[in-house]
Amino acid sequence: MQPSTTASSAFDTSAHDTLRALQWLGDRLHLLDQRRLPFEEAWIDCHGSREIARAIRDLVVRGAPAIGIAAAWGVVLAAQRGDDLDDALATLRAARPTAVNLMWALDRMRVCIDAGMDGEALAREAQAIQAEDLAANRAMGAMGAALIQPGSGVLTHCNTGSLATSGFGTALGVIRAGYESGNIARVFAGETRPWLQGARLTMWELQRDGIPATLVADSAASHLMKSGKVQWVVVGADRIAANGDTANKIGTYQLAIAAKHHGVKFMVVAPSTTVDMATPSGDAIEIELRDPAELLGYAGRRTVADGAQAWNPVFDVTPHDLIDVLVTERAVITQPDAATVRAVFGMPDTH
Amino acid sequence: MQPSTTASSAFDTSAHDTLRALQWLGDRLHLLDQRRLPFEEAWIDCHGSREIARAIRDLVVRGAPAIGIAAAWGVVLAAQRGDDLDDALATLRAARPTAVNLMWALDRMRVCIDAGMDGEALAREAQAIQAEDLAANRAMGAMGAALIQPGSGVLTHCNTGSLATSGFGTALGVIRAGYESGNIARVFAGETRPWLQGARLTMWELQRDGIPATLVADSAASHLMKSGKVQWVVVGADRIAANGDTANKIGTYQLAIAAKHHGVKFMVVAPSTTVDMATPSGDAIEIELRDPAELLGYAGRRTVADGAQAWNPVFDVTPHDLIDVLVTERAVITQPDAATVRAVFGMPDTH
Repeated sequence: MQPSTTASSAFDTSAHDTLRALQWLGDRLHLLDQRRLPFEEAWIDCHGSREIARAIRDLVVRGAPAIGIAAAWGVVLAAQRGDDLDDALATLRAARPTAVNLMWALDRMRVCIDAGMDGEALAREAQAIQAEDLAANRAMGAMGAALIQPGSGVLTHCNTGSLATSGFGTALGVIRAGYESGNIARVFAGETRPWLQGARLTMWELQRDGIPATLVADSAASHLMKSGKVQWVVVGADRIAANGDTANKIGTYQLAIAAKHHGVKFMVVAPSTTVDMATPSGDAIEIELRDPAELLGYAGRRTVADGAQAWNPVFDVTPHDLIDVLVTERAVITQPDAATVRAVFGMPDTH
Repeated sequence: MQPSTTASSAFDTSAHDTLRALQWLGDRLHLLDQRRLPFEEAWIDCHGSREIARAIRDLVVRGAPAIGIAAAWGVVLAAQRGDDLDDALATLRAARPTAVNLMWALDRMRVCIDAGMDGEALAREAQAIQAEDLAANRAMGAMGAALIQPGSGVLTHCNTGSLATSGFGTALGVIRAGYESGNIARVFAGETRPWLQGARLTMWELQRDGIPATLVADSAASHLMKSGKVQWVVVGADRIAANGDTANKIGTYQLAIAAKHHGVKFMVVAPSTTVDMATPSGDAIEIELRDPAELLGYAGRRTVADGAQAWNPVFDVTPHDLIDVLVTERAVITQPDAATVRAVFGMPDTH
């Protein structure tokens, strides 16, 4: 994929789009530490690929597109330092299992390494990955927002904004564009237990960019839909299988079931780097299980009695038949399934 | 209603049923402060009806049956102190709007007052309300557990146990009885944002009574159902309308939609005091909106950026057609609707 406009840079921002969470500084990657938001805007400098892998694992940087970009910069850092690149690629690839953008970015960097590119050329490649992501987000924002009737209410989940991408966002990019155009009048954000990406990150990001939003408990989504206040659920994705099944933050599947029940439309917004034609269906997607401790406390404070057990899958799979529309920068796919996805993304390849 | 056995007392406990959260001490009501669980077992003594009303409002005591019982004791305290009983009844009635058990208990005490009962007689009435609730819970536990196939997994929501009732619990009473009989092999508890009744209270109560349970995020319920690990969702109720529509903790409606989608059975367990024949359907049930601050932080620690808005309805309504079975101490009603509910509870009355 080539960027649709090479003029887009990580710092090309507008009124409702002021935030960039990944900044390449020539010899290090500057990351806004998302564990400490919304009360502290602390930045972390990563000087090597192991630091980047740790930042991905520990959720300093999160969001499928953002971790792909961060990993690409991790390869650049390894090359600059003369590290073993096979090691670096393996360490970065193992950082998190579900988002395929990570694997995609590393595969793309691997091709460049195999072609004999030096550190400078690799840095240009990482920069291209980052710029293409931003261009894709802007394109998806315009396409997705155009599908929404003027004056609509939307519900989103997790954080899919500038914090989760190169900038602008996927689902939150549609919300930015739709708010700007007036198609979106009201935004509701689910708090997204256990890590509270919605409460901590999306609410902060929207507030900072002047887009009014209302926080709801994840469990209030159906009651909200029944009230008639939302016409669309708009979410991102961590991996989209060849048949359109979509892995995304835990709770997305439940929102899709509830949306179908209420006749609320369900939109998935993700760049083509999230589409994994080598995975035939959602059943084949590995779902990351994280530390039960994330559920046994709240904001660093233990809430559950000692000795309690918890089950903490942090993604789930929404089957394609619950998805009304899949927005990628290449095309809007209504009623995604194996045939409609293949029509845009071609035959399965391996990665 | 008369208690099915007068031998049941608030202290008649067994191995998986050791906890009582409301204790009448002759001149005061001793309440386990549920705001401070699970880490601190602090008790509060209420000496008057205003203190009881505040304890209900502030969630020192919560759960539909428990707040009805507490309110009955509030009337006794007002009578003992020679307070204006009309005032006391009005203050207690206004403490929370959704659970009808509160109104039911106050109406029952009002009848006694109008009949000229003195403080001692009123105390016997409150004691009867409490004992009947316990007997009802034991009866419902046995009836509900018998509906569940041996070796099943169940998911519950909020806290419906000894903490929410006179003791034993409603949905958690079914879980106690089913675990004892072997019909229930695995228990999952949803954490129940925003107040975390599931995480803080249900997990503690089950652990204390030796019933192994696993905590899940509210948003993980559908993913759990899809995994095949649960065959039943078992919940309590705050008000059941004449057509079987059921108000319960926010998130219950979403669980019912998800259960239907997965072919998981959905059971509501509530004493007849929760049935409100004067409310024709769920549309007429007032849904309590609580302070957005409950969503904007936890335990005094803010998690969301300053200035953020939140919408915090703490109940929702599950329409009767999503409920497979309603268990009351009077009868098990399968496929509850206006006709089947009326067959057990008679014609609408006013209250």
